Amino acid sequence: MFSAETQVRVRYGETDKMGMVYYGNYPLFFEVGRTNLMREFNLTYRSIENSGIILPVTELNIKYHYPASYDDLLTIKTTIPEMPSVKILFNYEILNEAGKLVVTGNTILVFMNDKTRKPTRPPENFIDKIKPFFE
Amino acid sequence: MFSAETQVRVRYGETDKMGMVYYGNYPLFFEVGRTNLMREFNLTYRSIENSGIILPVTELNIKYHYPASYDDLLTIKTTIPEMPSVKILFNYEILNEAGKLVVTGNTILVFMNDKTRKPTRPPENFIDKIKPFFE
Amino acid sequence: MFSAETQVRVRYGETDKMGMVYYGNYPLFFEVGRTNLMREFNLTYRSIENSGIILPVTELNIKYHYPASYDDLLTIKTTIPEMPSVKILFNYEILNEAGKLVVTGNTILVFMNDKTRKPTRPPENFIDKIKPFFE
Amino acid sequence: MFSAETQVRVRYGETDKMGMVYYGNYPLFFEVGRTNLMREFNLTYRSIENSGIILPVTELNIKYHYPASYDDLLTIKTTIPEMPSVKILFNYEILNEAGKLVVTGNTILVFMNDKTRKPTRPPENFIDKIKPFFE
Repeated sequence: MFSAETQVRVRYGETDKMGMVYYGNYPLFFEVGRTNLMREFNLTYRSIENSGIILPVTELNIKYHYPASYDDLLTIKTTIPEMPSVKILFNYEILNEAGKLVVTGNTILVFMNDKTRKPTRPPENFIDKIKPFFE
Repeated sequence: MFSAETQVRVRYGETDKMGMVYYGNYPLFFEVGRTNLMREFNLTYRSIENSGIILPVTELNIKYHYPASYDDLLTIKTTIPEMPSVKILFNYEILNEAGKLVVTGNTILVFMNDKTRKPTRPPENFIDKIKPFFE
Repeated sequence: MFSAETQVRVRYGETDKMGMVYYGNYPLFFEVGRTNLMREFNLTYRSIENSGIILPVTELNIKYHYPASYDDLLTIKTTIPEMPSVKILFNYEILNEAGKLVVTGNTILVFMNDKTRKPTRPPENFIDKIKPFFE
Repeated sequence: MFSAETQVRVRYGETDKMGMVYYGNYPLFFEVGRTNLMREFNLTYRSIENSGIILPVTELNIKYHYPASYDDLLTIKTTIPEMPSVKILFNYEILNEAGKLVVTGNTILVFMNDKTRKPTRPPENFIDKIKPFFE
């Protein structure tokens, strides 16, 4: 298991007329979470793409527990719970400043060859870096 | 069971650098689908809010089957599969012009009193209109 | 001068906590307007890109006159007021269902070679189609 | 004149199929800039709204100089160049990590009574705090 935390501050444009964060903006926050997690390996998502591998999302699940408001400083906890294969699972927890759980969710992404759009093994350097966390 | 269809054309700003619709934009399309479905009852979501009831989303699930591209004309099929209680379930299927399945998903929303933020029964006129479809 | 009209219905996710359309969502509506205008020439923006020419925006100006609300059906009037060179100017007017002026604005886009990222002449078929409107 | 700087990292969902930040996402970055500038006065935009004053944008102008890419760390320099009246002008410069100018722009916002939706003077504590910078 490998985890990391990062923060986002809610933008005005991310709220809706209910006065809270629009439900469709949390996938963006999840993306911030997993981008940050991968940076912790000194392995940017950008560098993966540059090596000819893309990582489209194939599944997204979110449970909304408590509303987030404009200007809230949210903490995104992202976890890779199991050793990735051609698929990689990310779990997310988003909490507000009071420590209240705002949303939980997960995404499944697939390593895919940029040209053929076929599933592929993760890059070697990614496997090397992530393996120790699952031994 | 009650169903309706509507269409959206993919905007440039809804794509990402992978050249396809960003995974986080489908919740917006789902919202277009359920807004349209409710309009079929001559019952706008706007009118529900004006009667003091809000409908926050409590759960979202999406499976991504096939990428959608810029300028694609997508068909959103929205279904209410069971009689709503304080919760209402919407199922979605999005297809492209070739009839290929792009995404499937569902959302659960909760009828909530605008002031107390407590769950509440759906508005009477909504129940009256939707009931015949589940008899 | 060449003009066309199209419509968008305001999505819940396009509003903000002020209860109106977020100021940063109008550029999306402008994009819908100019995409539609070009389709009127049987010339899609997509086909321009496929011929190796991209059209980045170099300037955007918006004046906000009247708020738009959730579920409003907005009319976008888009005009090409002068014969395009390497640059193309689009003017926009957005009106609500009551005919009230919501925003006015304009964008300047530049025809650019996809590979060299240098400004270039518009595609021949585009020039052929648009020329008659400026004679 | 009063200035402040803050940073945003470009999200994947903020790019478009051209591979760069979508032109319509910069207004969100401007919002981050001015929210941060006001926080420098120990005066949050949130607290202004709580005192019954809203600040809708009435004008937006952007010039796009250089593309920003996914994962770029952008610096937003926001300036209030003149003493605000019922209107407040913000100037913005966004630079990438190499110090290259990405966009410049400005917005005009109007202090408005939440209830009457009429223009109003800025809150007293805001005037007190900002005045010394223009003397």
